[in-house]
Formats: sequence, structure tokens, C-alpha cells
Amino acid sequence: MIVVMQHGATRENAERVAQLIREMGLKDHIIEGTHRFVIAAIGDDRFLDKGAIENVEGVERIVPILAPYKVASKEVQAEPSLVPLGGRRGGVVGGPKVAVIAGPCSVESREQILEVASAVSEAGAVALRGGAFKPRTSPYQFQGLGEKGLEYLAEARERTGLAIVTEVMSIEQVDVVARYADVFQIGTRNMHNFNLLCACGEAGKPVLLKRGWSATLEEFLLAAEYIIHAGNKQVILCERGIRTFETYVRNTLALGVIPAIKRESHLPIVVDPSQGTGHAYMVPAMCRAAIAAGADGLIIEVHPDPQHALTDGAQSITPQVLHQTIAEVEKIAAAVGRSL
Amino acid sequence: MIVVMQHGATRENAERVAQLIREMGLKDHIIEGTHRFVIAAIGDDRFLDKGAIENVEGVERIVPILAPYKVASKEVQAEPSLVPLGGRRGGVVGGPKVAVIAGPCSVESREQILEVASAVSEAGAVALRGGAFKPRTSPYQFQGLGEKGLEYLAEARERTGLAIVTEVMSIEQVDVVARYADVFQIGTRNMHNFNLLCACGEAGKPVLLKRGWSATLEEFLLAAEYIIHAGNKQVILCERGIRTFETYVRNTLALGVIPAIKRESHLPIVVDPSQGTGHAYMVPAMCRAAIAAGADGLIIEVHPDPQHALTDGAQSITPQVLHQTIAEVEKIAAAVGRSL
Amino acid sequence: MIVVMQHGATRENAERVAQLIREMGLKDHIIEGTHRFVIAAIGDDRFLDKGAIENVEGVERIVPILAPYKVASKEVQAEPSLVPLGGRRGGVVGGPKVAVIAGPCSVESREQILEVASAVSEAGAVALRGGAFKPRTSPYQFQGLGEKGLEYLAEARERTGLAIVTEVMSIEQVDVVARYADVFQIGTRNMHNFNLLCACGEAGKPVLLKRGWSATLEEFLLAAEYIIHAGNKQVILCERGIRTFETYVRNTLALGVIPAIKRESHLPIVVDPSQGTGHAYMVPAMCRAAIAAGADGLIIEVHPDPQHALTDGAQSITPQVLHQTIAEVEKIAAAVGRSL
Amino acid sequence: MIVVMQHGATRENAERVAQLIREMGLKDHIIEGTHRFVIAAIGDDRFLDKGAIENVEGVERIVPILAPYKVASKEVQAEPSLVPLGGRRGGVVGGPKVAVIAGPCSVESREQILEVASAVSEAGAVALRGGAFKPRTSPYQFQGLGEKGLEYLAEARERTGLAIVTEVMSIEQVDVVARYADVFQIGTRNMHNFNLLCACGEAGKPVLLKRGWSATLEEFLLAAEYIIHAGNKQVILCERGIRTFETYVRNTLALGVIPAIKRESHLPIVVDPSQGTGHAYMVPAMCRAAIAAGADGLIIEVHPDPQHALTDGAQSITPQVLHQTIAEVEKIAAAVGRSL
Repeated sequence: MIVVMQHGATRENAERVAQLIREMGLKDHIIEGTHRFVIAAIGDDRFLDKGAIENVEGVERIVPILAPYKVASKEVQAEPSLVPLGGRRGGVVGGPKVAVIAGPCSVESREQILEVASAVSEAGAVALRGGAFKPRTSPYQFQGLGEKGLEYLAEARERTGLAIVTEVMSIEQVDVVARYADVFQIGTRNMHNFNLLCACGEAGKPVLLKRGWSATLEEFLLAAEYIIHAGNKQVILCERGIRTFETYVRNTLALGVIPAIKRESHLPIVVDPSQGTGHAYMVPAMCRAAIAAGADGLIIEVHPDPQHALTDGAQSITPQVLHQTIAEVEKIAAAVGRSL
Repeated sequence: MIVVMQHGATRENAERVAQLIREMGLKDHIIEGTHRFVIAAIGDDRFLDKGAIENVEGVERIVPILAPYKVASKEVQAEPSLVPLGGRRGGVVGGPKVAVIAGPCSVESREQILEVASAVSEAGAVALRGGAFKPRTSPYQFQGLGEKGLEYLAEARERTGLAIVTEVMSIEQVDVVARYADVFQIGTRNMHNFNLLCACGEAGKPVLLKRGWSATLEEFLLAAEYIIHAGNKQVILCERGIRTFETYVRNTLALGVIPAIKRESHLPIVVDPSQGTGHAYMVPAMCRAAIAAGADGLIIEVHPDPQHALTDGAQSITPQVLHQTIAEVEKIAAAVGRSL
Repeated sequence: MIVVMQHGATRENAERVAQLIREMGLKDHIIEGTHRFVIAAIGDDRFLDKGAIENVEGVERIVPILAPYKVASKEVQAEPSLVPLGGRRGGVVGGPKVAVIAGPCSVESREQILEVASAVSEAGAVALRGGAFKPRTSPYQFQGLGEKGLEYLAEARERTGLAIVTEVMSIEQVDVVARYADVFQIGTRNMHNFNLLCACGEAGKPVLLKRGWSATLEEFLLAAEYIIHAGNKQVILCERGIRTFETYVRNTLALGVIPAIKRESHLPIVVDPSQGTGHAYMVPAMCRAAIAAGADGLIIEVHPDPQHALTDGAQSITPQVLHQTIAEVEKIAAAVGRSL
Repeated sequence: MIVVMQHGATRENAERVAQLIREMGLKDHIIEGTHRFVIAAIGDDRFLDKGAIENVEGVERIVPILAPYKVASKEVQAEPSLVPLGGRRGGVVGGPKVAVIAGPCSVESREQILEVASAVSEAGAVALRGGAFKPRTSPYQFQGLGEKGLEYLAEARERTGLAIVTEVMSIEQVDVVARYADVFQIGTRNMHNFNLLCACGEAGKPVLLKRGWSATLEEFLLAAEYIIHAGNKQVILCERGIRTFETYVRNTLALGVIPAIKRESHLPIVVDPSQGTGHAYMVPAMCRAAIAAGADGLIIEVHPDPQHALTDGAQSITPQVLHQTIAEVEKIAAAVGRSL
């Protein structure tokens, strides 16, 4: 870390900072600039709480130098991680092939999920998404079919060979979801639910971790770090749009995160263009853009009858649109040297 | 809801929307404007998923009319709710008296918490805050003392009479926290953890619900709605700053939320100026501003030795500063017709 | 517009709103819902100040129905506008061909701009960008070469045939810039400078209008509306990133704006991946993503020696990287049925 | 500045950075940490473009140490600046007295402005605000009365003794506004209009500078720096709300900026609770909060008949409400040791 002193701070102030740095087991190094003192702390301080130093008289601010994540970073592993999705399709995220995960926001009925599964399978997806436990902003909204929904998903896998990606909302659900699903999805609202991150880490299944809608890149990678730290390296990051002042979209899809993650981390990253925009008409364009930017896959909301979808109808595309979108994505993938 | 059609949409498009509205059990009413069709849906649609209608050809957007919350709103209860905090001080949030809750970010040791409790008690607080279970962005940071921390808090209550406010991070912790604490705190990262909201609602203790750092007013009240809906009306809202582009603060304290909540809801609201700014030097000014704006109380981070605090040192004030701040707040409270 | 009344508002309140609506020359239509009154105003109210109605007792909020822009919208012109850039390359923005505009942030010297012009010309660009008047956050920073810079740009056009795109910062500069440039650039900080928008509109040259870094879609199109309203239909919109809480980028590139603009407006849109990220390493990925999403062109910062650039060095790519990026973009363009 | 190298960067990379630092006329100082190199640049680099260094291989990021503003900072002047407003009331901003500036958004007619002037004068204001040149998002909206409006303002001053605060939107308006007004207002949309800042700086009248709705604290002070640098020290800063994801307000009033400015700068700061919220019902609470937080004054929109205001009706309070609000503010001022 670097501690920047205020203009006018004294050498005694700087010495006090140096002393606290030494108390932390680090080496201090005071630099007297032309305008102010700066103190460098040498050593691994990434896991220390550095803010306390801000209370020393004359301190202006603390500048961390080391990224606070470790096992999620390229420092520890330079080559990209590959995460197999399970199912009979052999889908892998992070390799040369672009993985398409598709399906409804919610499992609404056996018929619905089997119909979608069959459609997305034909369209070229390698995994089926669908929520059995639904995090809903209002207590009065449809909360999902629960274990019954998981059974339907398993049946859909049986029939199509698609891997099953489904959300787990709390620790109590980990066991039951693990019995049916191939990949745990941790939703945007739970990215900071550290107890759940640990529990999913311990469960050992691949985890698709959605970025919190206001999470920084650092917080996103630290959430992955929690899972890896709990013993599970199979983490797939997912950009799904952030909250900004924009109103023509439900979320602002921040595709710049893709090259940033590729620079910082070995973990694969997929994009959710449905949550990431909130409008079905934008989904095909954002699928193409995501793959062009280097994403390792897509997770797309598809519903056979979006006008009657119980959840997220506005952003669900039909199987027909999915078909055409995947054809477009295939061309983009080829243009960047990848395939589906 | 109002459904706004695109320029150029046909009457057939509007009729299709009207049909979906009727399928929802609502009454439709088509208005042909000079430039486009608008369809009003009459009836209580607040718990329906309306987005699906966006998929009808020619629809531009859906405008909800009714607020999606109910039991948290003034429609159901016009007079303000009073929430007693417990402890021997008789603190109540929501009445004419302004309640001050103060204490360290984390319980670090028996000595520390007893010292702070004694200091904040003398300064005029009615409740002691302090985390035993700590949500931390990094898995390597101090995670709290757990049940041992709760024991120390209970001992502090015994000695001072202060009510105990402490965070509960997951459902598994609800029982143990309930054994020691007077008020459950739900942190900003868990405001959207709906399973936890329900579990806290069922536990029956007062809940201090922090606004998610990117939660809208509506989402904030819906989180309260989850708790009330689970059977617990004793909810204290807490504004603690939102995430914006600003960098000189850790969060942007949005005090406009106070008159907005007072207009929309019967629930009391307190302000956390410590999280709400991230810097100790701003805390006194923001305490004064919050009470001047009409807040029902404050929750302030206080540490006897902020330079050595294990967590949140940068934003913790000392007991001395608390003393002076409370004196200032008392004058502001008097200026708005309240007292401490 | 729709006026939504509060729960509990009376029919008298609604009648008062209706009266104000009639005073505005509109037709009123009161709808009595099951929970509250809603009043529709029928007629073209897009140019009226509707907020005043919020002051009537019992009004909750005003919902505008008509978009406030007109000549920039598809209502007035359904087919896309084509904007020729000038110069001898025949570049046109908005047609089947993707236009690449490239060059340094600032014109620094005759040698520099001639060198870059030659390089970007060879790489396949149709226009040269370069600032002679520079809007700088600090009064102590390099403010541009002024008219001398414009002369160098004109010489570069002479040699290469590239059209010249350069920023105009204030009305006094309009005449001198018009003497040398082919396309006026209005920078992000001036998108809301309405006097400048009008002056550029009157000058008659094509205008590349950068989105304000916090402008909504509506404000962006209204800025274009100012230019068109002043008599100039040759407007090129430019997405250049918005200000959000993200810190790993200088701005968050919001590519969802591309399908949104294509739906709302006939104007072409290009993307600035340099300002839109702030980091050279992200530029190639964002160039590809922009074209994949449907952008009509790119405006890229290129410098022969970014380590010594006077401005925006961090986000400038070298001519070599431009060469390779254009090759990649060409493949993406082909994948979406376009060419360079 | 501090240059942080990537993990794995070599000593050669660090040496290249050191060389560029020396080329800038600064002293370099390489620190070899346990995990990476960090290079400190010693000397005054606040006016250099440092981003270019980011292009050196192995550089992770640049951390500026010195604030980029100088004459606006406390480094140059420790004691607070006092800015007299003009008029016969002797209002001064920045001293022990809190200054209230009030008046309509726009000057709409002679009668309207004289009526408001008389009312705000009686209520205790020291200055009258009112726009004659109006920056409007749409070209079709009321654009102000121009010079005629300025004449009415001057007449209002004649009658009441109130100082006149009015907006100047472009350089061409500086002369005419200077003939009538006491204080130039630079609006939020023009905070980054550097040419206008300079022109107002040269004109010599006090300037009320509104914070851009997405401006950082640093950019805000740099805008003031432009004015001071042009020769005019009479700058009044004005917080007027920032753009965030919140929708129940037009802008999020960021009162934390007050203690931050008081720490960084000698310039006075006032608050605009009207623009800062967008709703009349929130204005009194935010007036009280602003003064409690330490603001030096208020600028409030007041209209005798908000239901018929031509602009900003939704956020204008009536003279009656102003009267009561000033009485409340007076009590708050007393509580923080100030007066009106």
C-alpha cells in the first residue's frame, strides 16, 4: 500500500504511519516529495485492513497496490481455466468453443420446460437454464416451483442431454439443487452473500457466478475467490449488466469487463444479454457483441410464449429468434477464431 | 398499469393487449390519442408480472401505476409505526425522540465492546451496535467473533442497559442471534436476500433493514414488505449511502430518501453516516444533516482506537467525537421540534 | 401524458388536473381505477412543460407518453439517414459500409499529424480525427494548437484524401473550424451546450455529436434535435461511454444504445472505443463488439508514439494495432452483412 | 505520481518508466516490493499528462498523488473566501451568515418577477434568482425572455435591494448579463464549458458555479480553478444534485460534498435543494439538512403560482412555503452557530 499524506503534514505524522505499518508486519519506506510525504508499505498487505491508518493525523488517503484477490488471479494461474458443464453434450466453458446456455427464466410447468429444452437443444445450446427457486423483488410474485421444478429440469436433461444450470438462493437449497443440477447459478442479488458462496464452494459443482448489479470488478473477483477458497475452482463468471442512470434498459451491459477479466483472471466469462438489457429486441445484437468482445459463452432467456411468461417475459426471446441468433453468433465466433 | 403503444401500432395490436389484460382478470380501457394508442388496465395488478405484455407487437412500454408494496405503505396505515428497541433505556424509533445507536463495526474483544458500550451509553445512545458475524468482501479478512461476540454484547447490555443491534447474515444464524440480540440488523448486501428477510420476519424481533447500496426506493420498501408479510411489523429502515460515480466518499448518502419515505411509508427511518460516507471526518456533519432532514435516528460507528480497528477504522469516530456530535445533534433535534 | 393521482386523492383533485390539461389546449380523460384516479391528456403535449401539474394537490406523478423529440425520430423518417463525410475517400456513415475514423486525440505538430494521417489512411480509415481546440479538465493542460492545428489537418487531407473530423468547442470557433474541417465534432462535455448545437446546426457541415457522459437516450436525441431543428439533418451520433461506478474503465461503453437508437431514430451511430474505455488494451475488443452490435462506424484514437502523447496517451493505440484491429473489424463486418 | 507495475513486470520495464519520469523533469524513485515494482515520481507533476506512461510494457496503473487544482485549494489559501453578492442587502457568502438566494426558475413577466422579488425579500432572502437565458433540453421549450428578462430583474433589484443572480449560457451573453446582474450563474450543463468559464472569469463579477450533474469533486474544483485562473477569485460553489440510478428524485443531493469541500478548498458552497431533488415537497427538509451540514447558503426556486410555472413547476415552492422554510432554516443555523 501507499499512504499519501496531506499537504502540510509533518514528518512526525509520517513516522506515526510508518510505525503502524511496522506493527502490521510490513516494511515502511518514507518518501519525502517536493510537496508532501508518501509512505510505501512493502510486503503482502492484501489481507490486512488498511483503512484504520486513515485516522492518523495528516493522512490524506490510502492507495492499495496489490489486488485483494489471489487464487482468482493470473498471478496464481496464467493459463485459462476450463469448466466442463456436465450433461451429454460435453460443453466446456473457457476453451475455443463458445458455449450457449439457454432456457426460460423460470420453470413454469413440465410441458413448458420440456418444450423449451427440446427447442434450445435443436438450436445448438449445450445447457439448459431455468429457475426452480426464484429470487423475486416482491413477496407476492411467483416464487418458483421448487423441487418439482428441479425434477422437470432433470427430466429435460434425460431427454436432451443438455446440462442443467439452475439458481440456488440459500444454503438450505444447496443439497436439493445438487441432487438435480449440473451447474449452480448464483444470482446477481447473492453475489455478496458470502455464506452462500462458501456453501456452493464446498458443494463441488461448477458455479456460474453472476456479477452483482453494482459490483466492481474487484468485488466480482473476490466473490469468485470465496468459492475457490472454499475448495472449488470451477467458477464461471457472468456479466449481466450493471445499474446506472440509464432508463431505456433494465441494466447497462458492460462488455468492457470481458477484456478486463481476461487480463486479470484465468476464469472464463459468459454474458447474459437478457438480464443485461431487459428487452427481447436487444438480445440478438448483444449476443453478437459479447462474442465479438471475447466472451466464452452466453446465457439467454428463451420462452415458447413470452406474452404469457410468468417471469421476465419482456426480455425473453422465442425459440425461433434463438435459432436465428445462434446462426448469427456462429458467424461472429468464426470471425474471432472460435466456433460453437 | 398503462400500456403505451408505439407510433404506428394498429388497433389490432391494441386489442391484443386488451385481451391479455382481460386474461389477467383486469378491465381494459383503450384510449386512442392523437398520436398513439394507450391502454389502461383497471384493477389491482400490483402482484402480476406485467412485462410479458411488452412482447405484443406494437407495444412501446408498460407504465405501472400502483406501487408494488402494500403493507409497508401509508395506504394500509397512515400513522407512523413506533418500534421499541428493547434494553433498559426504553429507546423507541419513530416517535418524537431521536434514537442514537452507536458502537464498533465489529466486536473485537470483551474489553473493547465493554469499553465502547460504557462510552456510548454515557454519550447518550440508547442502543449498542457491533457485529459478531461480519460480511466481508474478501475471504481472508476478519470474519467476526461469532457467538462469543454475541455473549460479549449481551454482557454489555447487562452492564449498561443499552439495547443490542447486531447483524444476522444467514438463516442458520437467526436462532443464535435471537438468543442474544434485541434487534436484528440486515446488512446492505443482504437487502435482496429474500430467504433471510422471511426468516427474520418469522423470528419476531425488530429488524433494522439497511438499504441495498443500489436499491431503489421501491426495492427498499419491498424488502420491508417481505419482513412484514412474514408476520413482523417491527421494521426500521436505514439509509446508508448508495453507490454512485463519486470517489471522495465510499458511498453517497442520499438524504432525500427521508422525506420520500415519510411520504410513502409508515415505517421509521434512521441514517448510518459512517457507511454513508466512509470517512470519520464527515460523520458529524452528516449526523446533523440527517436529523435536520427528519430522520428518526442514527446508527454510528464508534471505536476507542480507530487506528487499530480491525474493520472500518477509516469511518469510525472516537467516543470523544461521539460525545460532541450528540451534543450538536441534540441542538438540531430541538430545532426541528424533537429531542434525544 | 398520464397524470397518476395519489391513493386517497379526491375527484375534485382529479378535476383540477383535468382543468389544467384543458388550459394547455389538450383533451382530458379521467379514469377512475379501483385504487386511484388516473387522468389522460390527449393531444400533442410533447413541447409543454408538464411538471407544473405535479403541484396540484393529490398528484403523485406525471408520465409522459410521447417522446419529446420529433425530427430525430423514426416517426418523421422511417429509412436510415446517410451522412457523407467529405474528403476524397467517399466515406458515408449510415449505409452498408462501416466507416472508420481514426487519428490522434490532439494535433501536436505537423509531423505527427501527417505521419498518423498516412498510417490510418493505409490501414483503411476514411476520415482523420484530431483536436486543434481541446476541452481540458484543467486550465494548466495542453489546450491544443488552435488554427495552426487546423491547417495541419487540412494539409493531411490534401495528401491523403481523408475527411477531417475535428472538435468545435464554442461558437467563436465555428467559422474557423468550418474553413478547414469536413465534419464538426461536438464533444461529450458540450452535448448540452445548446447555443453551440444551434450554431453548428446553422453552419451546415455534418456534425458528429458525442453523447454526454451522463446523458439519457432522450437527452442525446434532443441534442440532435437541436441541430436538425437549426436546419442541419447531417447528424452522426456517437456513443463514447457513460459515467458509472466502475473504476477499471474511464467510462462504461453502453453498446445497448445501438439497437435502441436503431429502433428510435433514423440517424447513424458510431462508437468511440478509446474514450469509451480509457485503456488501449481494450480498444480492439470494443471495436469488434461495436460493429457486431450494429454500429455504423468507429472513431478511434491512434498515436504513433503513445508513450509521448500530449493527451489521452493511455487510450491511444499505435498504427500497428490499428492495422490489425481493422482487419478483425472487417471480418466482424462481413459476419453481419456489411463491409468496410 | 506513483506508477504501479504489473505482477511479473521486469526491472527493465520499471527502468523505462523511470526514464519517462526523468524526461518529464521529475525525479524517479524505484521501489522493489515483495510482489511488484512501484515507481514514485518526485516533483510537481500535477499539470503533466501522466496517462501516456500507461503504455509502457508492464505498467498496471498510474496513481496521481497531488490534487490537480491549486488556487482553489487550501494549500494556497487556508482561511475561507468571502464573496459579497452585491445589491443593497449586503449579503456575503462564506462568512458566519447563511445567505438565501431565491426566485423563480425563469423570469416569465415583469409582474411575476416583481411579485416574487417582493415576496422573497420579505421572507428574508438577500438575493433574487431568475433565468433570462434558459438552457432547455428541448429546442421547443420556453427559452427565456432574454435581455427583457434582465431588465425586469434589474427593476426588481431597484425596488427591493436584492442582489441579482442569473445564468449566463454562452460567451456572447457575458456582456449583456454583466450590465444587469450582480452574480453570474453557470449552470450544471456548462460546468465543463471551459471557454465560458474563462470568459466569466475575465468579466470580474462573482460567479455561482453549479456542479455538473456527473462531475467529480476534482472536476468541480478544476472548473472553479479555470475561473480563478482567469483572474476572478469570487467563486461560489453550488451543489445541485448528481445523476444516479435513483428515480424518485430528479437528482440525488450529495450533501457529503459540503464537508469535503470545506476540507479541500477555501471557496464557499451553497446548495440548490430544488434542482437537487426535483420535487417541491422535499425542498424544506433539504434546506434544513444543507445548513445543518455546513452549507454557506441556499438557492431556492420560488414561484407565486407553481401550477402555471413555465419551467420547473414541479420543484418550485410558493412564497408561503419559503417563509416557513426560512423560519426553520433560521433555527438550524442557530443550532450550528450561524445566523441568517
